[in-house]
Amino acid sequence: MKKLLLFVLAFGFTLNAYAAPVYEANWQSLDARETPQWWKDAKFGIFIHWGPYSVPSFSKNGFYSEWYWRNLVDEKRVKQGYKETKAFHDANYGPLFTYPDFATEFKTELFDPDQWAEVMESSGAKYVVLTSKHHDGFCLWPNEQADRSWGRPWNSVGTGPGRDLLGELTTAVRKTEMKMGIYYSLYEWYNPLYASDVDLYVDQHMIPQFKDVVSKYAPSVIFSDGEWEHPDTTWRSTEMLAWLFNESPSKDEIVINDRWGKGCRHTHGGYYTTEYGSGLNDPSIAWEESRGMAHSYGFSRTENLADYNTGQKFVYMLVDIVSRGGNFLLDIGPTADGRIPVIQQERMKEIGDWLAINGEAIYGTKAWKKSCQWTEGKIQDAERGEYKSGFDIMQLTVNPQEGFATKEMWFTQKGDALYAICPVYPEDKMLIKGVKVAKDAEVSLLGLPGKLKWKQRGDAIEVEVPAVTPSTAPCAYAWTVKVSGVFE
Amino acid sequence: MKKLLLFVLAFGFTLNAYAAPVYEANWQSLDARETPQWWKDAKFGIFIHWGPYSVPSFSKNGFYSEWYWRNLVDEKRVKQGYKETKAFHDANYGPLFTYPDFATEFKTELFDPDQWAEVMESSGAKYVVLTSKHHDGFCLWPNEQADRSWGRPWNSVGTGPGRDLLGELTTAVRKTEMKMGIYYSLYEWYNPLYASDVDLYVDQHMIPQFKDVVSKYAPSVIFSDGEWEHPDTTWRSTEMLAWLFNESPSKDEIVINDRWGKGCRHTHGGYYTTEYGSGLNDPSIAWEESRGMAHSYGFSRTENLADYNTGQKFVYMLVDIVSRGGNFLLDIGPTADGRIPVIQQERMKEIGDWLAINGEAIYGTKAWKKSCQWTEGKIQDAERGEYKSGFDIMQLTVNPQEGFATKEMWFTQKGDALYAICPVYPEDKMLIKGVKVAKDAEVSLLGLPGKLKWKQRGDAIEVEVPAVTPSTAPCAYAWTVKVSGVFE
Amino acid sequence: MKKLLLFVLAFGFTLNAYAAPVYEANWQSLDARETPQWWKDAKFGIFIHWGPYSVPSFSKNGFYSEWYWRNLVDEKRVKQGYKETKAFHDANYGPLFTYPDFATEFKTELFDPDQWAEVMESSGAKYVVLTSKHHDGFCLWPNEQADRSWGRPWNSVGTGPGRDLLGELTTAVRKTEMKMGIYYSLYEWYNPLYASDVDLYVDQHMIPQFKDVVSKYAPSVIFSDGEWEHPDTTWRSTEMLAWLFNESPSKDEIVINDRWGKGCRHTHGGYYTTEYGSGLNDPSIAWEESRGMAHSYGFSRTENLADYNTGQKFVYMLVDIVSRGGNFLLDIGPTADGRIPVIQQERMKEIGDWLAINGEAIYGTKAWKKSCQWTEGKIQDAERGEYKSGFDIMQLTVNPQEGFATKEMWFTQKGDALYAICPVYPEDKMLIKGVKVAKDAEVSLLGLPGKLKWKQRGDAIEVEVPAVTPSTAPCAYAWTVKVSGVFE
Amino acid sequence: MKKLLLFVLAFGFTLNAYAAPVYEANWQSLDARETPQWWKDAKFGIFIHWGPYSVPSFSKNGFYSEWYWRNLVDEKRVKQGYKETKAFHDANYGPLFTYPDFATEFKTELFDPDQWAEVMESSGAKYVVLTSKHHDGFCLWPNEQADRSWGRPWNSVGTGPGRDLLGELTTAVRKTEMKMGIYYSLYEWYNPLYASDVDLYVDQHMIPQFKDVVSKYAPSVIFSDGEWEHPDTTWRSTEMLAWLFNESPSKDEIVINDRWGKGCRHTHGGYYTTEYGSGLNDPSIAWEESRGMAHSYGFSRTENLADYNTGQKFVYMLVDIVSRGGNFLLDIGPTADGRIPVIQQERMKEIGDWLAINGEAIYGTKAWKKSCQWTEGKIQDAERGEYKSGFDIMQLTVNPQEGFATKEMWFTQKGDALYAICPVYPEDKMLIKGVKVAKDAEVSLLGLPGKLKWKQRGDAIEVEVPAVTPSTAPCAYAWTVKVSGVFE
Repeated sequence: MKKLLLFVLAFGFTLNAYAAPVYEANWQSLDARETPQWWKDAKFGIFIHWGPYSVPSFSKNGFYSEWYWRNLVDEKRVKQGYKETKAFHDANYGPLFTYPDFATEFKTELFDPDQWAEVMESSGAKYVVLTSKHHDGFCLWPNEQADRSWGRPWNSVGTGPGRDLLGELTTAVRKTEMKMGIYYSLYEWYNPLYASDVDLYVDQHMIPQFKDVVSKYAPSVIFSDGEWEHPDTTWRSTEMLAWLFNESPSKDEIVINDRWGKGCRHTHGGYYTTEYGSGLNDPSIAWEESRGMAHSYGFSRTENLADYNTGQKFVYMLVDIVSRGGNFLLDIGPTADGRIPVIQQERMKEIGDWLAINGEAIYGTKAWKKSCQWTEGKIQDAERGEYKSGFDIMQLTVNPQEGFATKEMWFTQKGDALYAICPVYPEDKMLIKGVKVAKDAEVSLLGLPGKLKWKQRGDAIEVEVPAVTPSTAPCAYAWTVKVSGVFE
Repeated sequence: MKKLLLFVLAFGFTLNAYAAPVYEANWQSLDARETPQWWKDAKFGIFIHWGPYSVPSFSKNGFYSEWYWRNLVDEKRVKQGYKETKAFHDANYGPLFTYPDFATEFKTELFDPDQWAEVMESSGAKYVVLTSKHHDGFCLWPNEQADRSWGRPWNSVGTGPGRDLLGELTTAVRKTEMKMGIYYSLYEWYNPLYASDVDLYVDQHMIPQFKDVVSKYAPSVIFSDGEWEHPDTTWRSTEMLAWLFNESPSKDEIVINDRWGKGCRHTHGGYYTTEYGSGLNDPSIAWEESRGMAHSYGFSRTENLADYNTGQKFVYMLVDIVSRGGNFLLDIGPTADGRIPVIQQERMKEIGDWLAINGEAIYGTKAWKKSCQWTEGKIQDAERGEYKSGFDIMQLTVNPQEGFATKEMWFTQKGDALYAICPVYPEDKMLIKGVKVAKDAEVSLLGLPGKLKWKQRGDAIEVEVPAVTPSTAPCAYAWTVKVSGVFE
Repeated sequence: MKKLLLFVLAFGFTLNAYAAPVYEANWQSLDARETPQWWKDAKFGIFIHWGPYSVPSFSKNGFYSEWYWRNLVDEKRVKQGYKETKAFHDANYGPLFTYPDFATEFKTELFDPDQWAEVMESSGAKYVVLTSKHHDGFCLWPNEQADRSWGRPWNSVGTGPGRDLLGELTTAVRKTEMKMGIYYSLYEWYNPLYASDVDLYVDQHMIPQFKDVVSKYAPSVIFSDGEWEHPDTTWRSTEMLAWLFNESPSKDEIVINDRWGKGCRHTHGGYYTTEYGSGLNDPSIAWEESRGMAHSYGFSRTENLADYNTGQKFVYMLVDIVSRGGNFLLDIGPTADGRIPVIQQERMKEIGDWLAINGEAIYGTKAWKKSCQWTEGKIQDAERGEYKSGFDIMQLTVNPQEGFATKEMWFTQKGDALYAICPVYPEDKMLIKGVKVAKDAEVSLLGLPGKLKWKQRGDAIEVEVPAVTPSTAPCAYAWTVKVSGVFE
Repeated sequence: MKKLLLFVLAFGFTLNAYAAPVYEANWQSLDARETPQWWKDAKFGIFIHWGPYSVPSFSKNGFYSEWYWRNLVDEKRVKQGYKETKAFHDANYGPLFTYPDFATEFKTELFDPDQWAEVMESSGAKYVVLTSKHHDGFCLWPNEQADRSWGRPWNSVGTGPGRDLLGELTTAVRKTEMKMGIYYSLYEWYNPLYASDVDLYVDQHMIPQFKDVVSKYAPSVIFSDGEWEHPDTTWRSTEMLAWLFNESPSKDEIVINDRWGKGCRHTHGGYYTTEYGSGLNDPSIAWEESRGMAHSYGFSRTENLADYNTGQKFVYMLVDIVSRGGNFLLDIGPTADGRIPVIQQERMKEIGDWLAINGEAIYGTKAWKKSCQWTEGKIQDAERGEYKSGFDIMQLTVNPQEGFATKEMWFTQKGDALYAICPVYPEDKMLIKGVKVAKDAEVSLLGLPGKLKWKQRGDAIEVEVPAVTPSTAPCAYAWTVKVSGVFE
């Protein structure tokens, strides 16, 4: 199907007028579209959750701050353990202050889109995905459907910021080499149309709104969400996607995810999604793990240093994900006044500093036949992907106190090179098993000048690694041995 | 049909269970229901417009303050001469402040329902009609449909007052001898359901809400409004009224008006309505004229003394209306903090002081064969009801500078008595034409002790009226000569 | 002293430069200045209390709304029965909301100075006195001393209105024939300088501020107040007044009152003041009674119709005061948004309508040898001035139910005429005792054309009064019989 | 003098009543008091700037956010380059919003004093100094003098938080092993007493207030400030300090600084202060360098990652300061809602992690005869203390790219041990010059087990340092070689 597309594009202008749509509004046709290569090569993106929930910016017990409205007013949720939201709300804003009121205090007065783009680029990320609209329905761009909402204009130009946040950030991001994408929620918790008649909602509100955001900003990624209450037939997703792929300004480079209706995840659409998980083990499919820096996507004022993962841990997550063929979409939660919290800037810089030395082993690579090698009897490849709590087990493996080191590494490959990425600095000699290389293969440690000595030992190669001190090491966290001439 | 109703009621409890509904959901059946006698006897009621619009309480050029939202945001209206609302709004609240925000400042903190009831009763009114919900959709009682609105709870318990205003006032009014009624708007300007699908709106929102307010408060009057955009079939008005007349707790004493769908006014429902007009000339039908004390129903801060009608004028309006068989529903506009402006209290007291002396000539009366008599060649009966600007011409007729007086009067009748109400104190002798009375008829001036001398002159009677000074007159504004023995 | 002043003025320009100051800074010199004739002739002025206290506009139990701050925070007052202020405040604004915060909500957005001037002029008043600064220290003009206050700029240009309220009203009033005056409080409750060192306060704050307001607006009246905590020597009042009389732009027509230091009232300064009293009985001194329309000077939202005096009562107060040689300064309390409550407009118009007919008997008159005559055995002249509760006793006397009438009247005189003002319309014949008139004296009833018949009976004259009805009487409330030729 | 004090204390209770004051109110007596040992041993404290300025939390061009009020309204400052504050203020709060209004939004609702204490203790700090009152005069405790301010109660219990912030934090800090201290500003920018009469201010306001805060919280440190406009005689500082040293509950362990009047700095009082400098070079006097983590003491929302110093740099600052006999008071700026920004938590933890390994070389130590040794021809000892921009030059010296390393180190000493702290990990052999040690001296690297080999070479010793990798090094940033047996 990809070839057909290219063929059609090759004919260009003359055929365009009467060419039949390339994609049909059914999953068979849509699923056949290949994920654009730029995204597969990008590996690392920054997710942004920002909206009226950034005003209270409250979470507790690990639930998401962007679900504040739901946690506040949904009776079931209040009973099931989210009652701290209501207690917090009543104490600080009073029971008569409603969630929509937060929109007036979402002022983003310090928002500097170019500074954001610069900070995000410093992380080494290759794409950005902003919540154009979350489940609260508040649009970060001047959308007419949201304008017609009852009461307060429900978008960032009519209420609160008085600015086209999505437009401004899109412009800034496109000055860099990063791609710009959007998150978009199909459902809206308290849109009265949705509550009363979902078909009407889809027809009059959602589809026009979706087309509006795509037409205005031509995003390169659409991270759909909020799909689970209805099948894709209710959302008319295939119709919408056929339009997206055939007619929209995004049609060539658009990348979509798999959240287009009840039962669609890991089945239909574009790349498969996991969140606060550990991704998938099948590199033949496109997938992406997303998570915030602490326990929430949206900013949470209750999260302290102990809640934030370290830069080291994010580097391991990234390497681990890429070694299994996935992408990592790391989320930041800006504040209501328009700042990226400095701790989040720091985390991005820590990752970016590592990628500045080791990016060659990440961007544009693919998974090797084995994603990693671990000390015998400790951690099995087979276990990868089964843990739920997000890379916790890895923390153990890099503890030098436990006395193992050189045999632990992740792998990626690109061109003729294999990359072995070691979370513990290899002392003296390291062994890479299951690889045979050309005799003139070159081995190096990224960031250090010169070549390393090596020799083939059976189906493994043994590499001599030079000694470095903390003051002379080329980077922190993980070190990459590159072996060229592995593949033809 | 009325008789059938009484018949059914007479059988009481035993028949109740299996009796077929008395009224059917069609106009033929519903229109046959007679207006309850209490309302016909009452003559004078107080209308109350109160809601979030009481916060800006702004009007200009004679438009209504309660239409603030519409005047503010409706593009056509803004162009057609309501632009002062937007200018006022932007200057005082800013363009990002929305109408729904006013609800949070509608705090009614000084609202004392018993004091209101006392003040309204001081006017001599026999019923009260409160806007349970105006076109903005804001409910003055805790209604679940309004609760489920998007965003801010759209009723007086959830937002703003934190009180059941309708419930509190109903309780207070029922401690007096006045009846309690409600105004209810069928349409809601910016209810998104209404905008998207009126059938859905009627089914899910309006009908349950209407039944809720009736079931909770059992009003004695329903002043429907906002009906003109759709026929009664869309509103399902006949179905709703059949329920009201057959099943609701209001079914026995409920009085309704004629605003139940496009084309219904002066055709279907209950009494006929006029507003800021001069009523109708046909006493055989039930009708009611309503108007505010100045140019607006809702309170308007821009209205000064010159905009308010005088107490004298309201007495004349009342007398004039009753003389033609109508009721007068005089509107007050309380403030957002819950006060009845003192000038409105004064006007009510001025009317009430007059009624304390002359009420006999008003309550329970009906129109005579002629509603009034005027000086030859000046004002013709036929002209009554044709003037639009509200009793202005009358002001001329009572100007003593113009030198005419005693032949001008309005009439009502009750039992065997005819009442001649004179806006100019009759000097010496007065003539009532077209009446023949029994020889032992008694003639008196209400408020003065003793009987007056009189004699029949042809088809008229001539009455000798005693001299009074401003210090000895029984009342101000108008004086009533009662002639008994006119009817059998 | 007055003559000397005129003499100096007569020499005009040439002498002006080297003339020694006319008044010295001691009471002997200052007290000798005569009250300007314009004020003695004016008789009736409008007082205005307006400031941040107009926001809460709360009073209870008869205390003044403009004392809100004191009632709120003064521990002694809270204990002594003003605790309702604190309860009201905490319930409606919260305990952390302070009085100075009200200044930000004192926005006066609807203030139309020309409309105010027009309304005040409709009352027949001849001068206006606005609170340039009350005890809270908030200035209604852009005063530099108030600007330098700690925290919020404490004047109407820096905080709240953003307008020079005093300047705008002065300009508007001066377009009419009324004079413009100011109220000015010497002390300020919570000015930290005042609390710490009153001398510093007087020197750095009060005197410069006083000179500023006089120099900028050249007021015709200064109603000083807040003087009781210190003697005039502390306030340096004589020094300030010498400047006022000798050098200030107000020096020629300025009228001052008697509140310039502890012990000054009814002793030093200008006219003597009473408030919510009944004035004085000595027409040889200048005095003025002031009071609000209900129980408070500043607007109070808790005051309902029953709390307001009627127009009739105000007419009686005015007549009674003028008959004893005093002036009446009737206070209005505008709202925080800049309106004169309509009931206050109505009261002013009621007085003005009466004065339109009877003003000849008020303006420019002086007291007669007897201020009034009452029915024998009922009310003695001697009692006048002793009652405290404000004219209540008078209400009894005008009750026609009590059956007395023609002998009750107040007197004023002007030129050769005596005016007898009757609160009950005289029936048939009236008797004025203690007066002998020229034979060709003319007697009339103001507002009616033609002359009345009269004859001398001993030391009295008997006047025949024509019959009028409520529809033909020239005015309401009180009727004036003018007898010319009484004096030479 | 110190001995006399101990003597008196030894006599305890019996002598107490009639003992003459130990310290006299003159500098000779007061300066003779020794700085308590606990403070000399502590080396590292956390400074906290928190107040109404934390609401706007704005700074630009390197000025301090806590000077917001001054920058906003002082005409000279506005002209001299602080105009961005006014522009920011007007755009975001409007020109009518005043600095005191910020106090109402200083709500500290998320303030958890125990969590603060825990986070601060994680830095390895031994004392905490909170701004009890900054130049704005706002008190973080319920002070009566601040209560009596004009208008809004000017302390954290009366306005804003509604909590005794100083009291709560004092209690929490005292649960740890840290000492609690206060910052206190002598002057107040806009206190009207201060502006009008500084003597009155000192007498009625400052001295009672100072005694109140000391009496209530018995602080261990007083960091005075705002002294420069008047000599200490105006502030009556010696009188105040005599009270502090003789009578106050803090008298035994109190440590004070040198800001007690114009000309006092580096002359009188307690330890000498530098801010955003590099401290002093004379270890015989007590001194302390303080600075924020970025360019401001108070929190500034405009500061991004690039503005913050790294944890590495703070470790170097601390070591450099301690090597010259000083203390380091590192400031944090909490937010208005009561959080310590996570980046500040991170910085504290980075320092604390380093101190956990190397604290032995810091706490309780004193300066050695040379504070550091540097590579010949690069940086001279003599230059230390002359640089202004804060340790910037040091950053160069630790750049491994420049190829020098082992000869650079700072020194401290304690007991018989010398500590050489190396910002670059010493490779193979290191030389410590100018030291002769006992033959059985032991040499070790803190954090690594075992002893290091060494030998004396002339007046130097040469130490063999073991190889470590980034994965095996005991800490980051700097590594300490301890040589025992150096001193007797």
